[in-house]
Amino acid sequence: MEKFNPVDHPHRRYNPLIDQWILVSPHRAKRPWQGAQETPATNTLPAHDPDCFLCAGNTRITGDKNPDYTGTYVFTNDFAALMTDTPDAPASDDILMRCESARGTSRVICFSPDHSKTLPEMSLNALEIVVRTWQEQTADLGQHYPWVQVFENKGAAMGCSNPHPHGQVWANSFLPNEAQREDDNQRDYFAKNGSPMLVDYTAREQKDGSRTVVETEHWLAVVPWWAAWPFETLLLPKAHIKRLTDLTDAQRKDLALAIKQLTSRYDNLFQCSFPYSMGWHGAPFNGEANDHWQLHAHFYPPLLRSATVRKFMVGYEMLAETQRDLTAEQAAERLRSVSDVHFREAQQ
Amino acid sequence: MEKFNPVDHPHRRYNPLIDQWILVSPHRAKRPWQGAQETPATNTLPAHDPDCFLCAGNTRITGDKNPDYTGTYVFTNDFAALMTDTPDAPASDDILMRCESARGTSRVICFSPDHSKTLPEMSLNALEIVVRTWQEQTADLGQHYPWVQVFENKGAAMGCSNPHPHGQVWANSFLPNEAQREDDNQRDYFAKNGSPMLVDYTAREQKDGSRTVVETEHWLAVVPWWAAWPFETLLLPKAHIKRLTDLTDAQRKDLALAIKQLTSRYDNLFQCSFPYSMGWHGAPFNGEANDHWQLHAHFYPPLLRSATVRKFMVGYEMLAETQRDLTAEQAAERLRSVSDVHFREAQQ
Ligand SMILES: O=P(O)(O)O[C@H]1O[C@H](CO)[C@@H](O)[C@H](O)[C@H]1O
Ligand SMILES: O=P(O)(O)O[C@H]1O[C@H](CO)[C@@H](O)[C@H](O)[C@H]1O
Repeated sequence: MEKFNPVDHPHRRYNPLIDQWILVSPHRAKRPWQGAQETPATNTLPAHDPDCFLCAGNTRITGDKNPDYTGTYVFTNDFAALMTDTPDAPASDDILMRCESARGTSRVICFSPDHSKTLPEMSLNALEIVVRTWQEQTADLGQHYPWVQVFENKGAAMGCSNPHPHGQVWANSFLPNEAQREDDNQRDYFAKNGSPMLVDYTAREQKDGSRTVVETEHWLAVVPWWAAWPFETLLLPKAHIKRLTDLTDAQRKDLALAIKQLTSRYDNLFQCSFPYSMGWHGAPFNGEANDHWQLHAHFYPPLLRSATVRKFMVGYEMLAETQRDLTAEQAAERLRSVSDVHFREAQQ
Repeated sequence: MEKFNPVDHPHRRYNPLIDQWILVSPHRAKRPWQGAQETPATNTLPAHDPDCFLCAGNTRITGDKNPDYTGTYVFTNDFAALMTDTPDAPASDDILMRCESARGTSRVICFSPDHSKTLPEMSLNALEIVVRTWQEQTADLGQHYPWVQVFENKGAAMGCSNPHPHGQVWANSFLPNEAQREDDNQRDYFAKNGSPMLVDYTAREQKDGSRTVVETEHWLAVVPWWAAWPFETLLLPKAHIKRLTDLTDAQRKDLALAIKQLTSRYDNLFQCSFPYSMGWHGAPFNGEANDHWQLHAHFYPPLLRSATVRKFMVGYEMLAETQRDLTAEQAAERLRSVSDVHFREAQQ
């Protein structure tokens, strides 16, 4: 019988962080595509757009006026999915129709007053200010809520309705599904192995190298063994750090560099502004020691073959299991093979 | 303090089938949308398209020629995600980089030779032939594989690359994630309550009625209490039926009617061909009694506000928890308020 070869043969890989499998069908990338085409963001935008409700000095839908900010600017979402003062839902142990209270808040974080920039095109100094803002928001909201979800939806393909560089932070009075899962699985691993799962994983990936995309002094970005999205990456500190708020100055400065390099590689892959959703996971603010937790960021980009052809997580994926069309190693190799200097900066 | 009201106040609901929460933010549907627009399928197609690789008598990419079929037509996917003869992957108990064998097959099911039709526009007789084909495929593949996933991706928004009415069936040598989850949770419920979870749930929904969308003699379609997608539905038999292959003739005939009514209501909601991914879950073919299993179909449609504005499951949803912008009861009410006769048939 033929020998198993992960580049030719379908197989499943296991994601220990959320206890879930992924079906890898590497030979499938060859099939032709006649379906929906994405509209890539390849045009240059003005530095200030009078119609943008995130630009400095502009008036928002609510009538509120943005200040003339220069670094980042944070405000409460005008259409927040959560409210700070929702009354308690009646307690219920009805397993078939169970309901629970949910309180929280959501804020918008403008990354820069410059409407035309995205993270990879911002200076290292400006990126450090973004990281600092993520830290401040996490510290502030972590005083009142067990879970603080910092994230960015980038590009129309990822439901982003405004190209102005911005992210969000949602705080929750509960541990959301993904947080609960990562908490459970990291806790189990720690109990069994005496070390944090992602600290061990980072050491393995550093040694292996085949899934590495970016390595800086303090950070490592890999296409994880268990990647679901074609060019998904996991950004990890090399040291054991529980939360964004625990970074040293050196780690924060170096994080700006790691983000710039990673997002530049993304944009360079298909010479477009690479859409993604990204976000940070760190130890919950629940008063526990949380030694099993390791801080990390997930990047989930949808593009598969070009600036216009994305991966659809539909039918089989929704009903059965996530399926991918290339191996994690192939994706990492592709991202390593492009420059870490953004194509627009290289042209200057 | 104000009294809790599920129509005004964000809350979480629990999905007992997959042990997962959903954040419901009903007030959020009011926010304006300036993001991506879908291209609705509102045009009429020819009954035969010479360039379509699913139309009767046409030649496919591989050079194979489709027969002049009249009912349904099934063939093995030319770019299958799974192969029947993949060699075994080396066994591994490395939790951080775990890999497993995966074998299977995937087939395409053409629902009709008529390129211009979709399920709601097909006759009850033709729909019954589709159900019969699903049954035959399940029976055939269930002899060799523990899991047989019947599904349909409909519309460009759901990654469907060809409007010719068709679905797929993928067989797996393993229980995929969603199957495993539903198996575990139905098993636990059965052990605790002595009755199948979804049989109990169906009885509750029949009595309540507020989430009912379609009710026929043998079938019930509801927006489930725990719906994730805006107009998601769960189609359930009223009797205890473990698998598609176990339907009586009367149940099969009536299923054609339930599908026609449900998908017609979908199309009528925004007067377009309503995109969705749908698929069947039934007891695995693993030689066990599986009394905890109840057959059901999930419909996951992405549209939110109109034929062009969809719900994006992105940032917060990917990193934290599924979030929806209207209650299940509001969605069911909307679907009940439109006709169950398809708008194109009503115009005739
Ligand atoms: O097989 P198709 O229709 O070409 O492809 C579609 O359905 C598959 C199964 O859900 C997905 O993996 C693909 O991403 C999607 O585009
Ligand atoms: O808040 P936004 O950017 O308007 O909306 C976007 O992000 C949210 C959080 O991930 C999602 O719930 C929305 O579906 C998406 O369109």
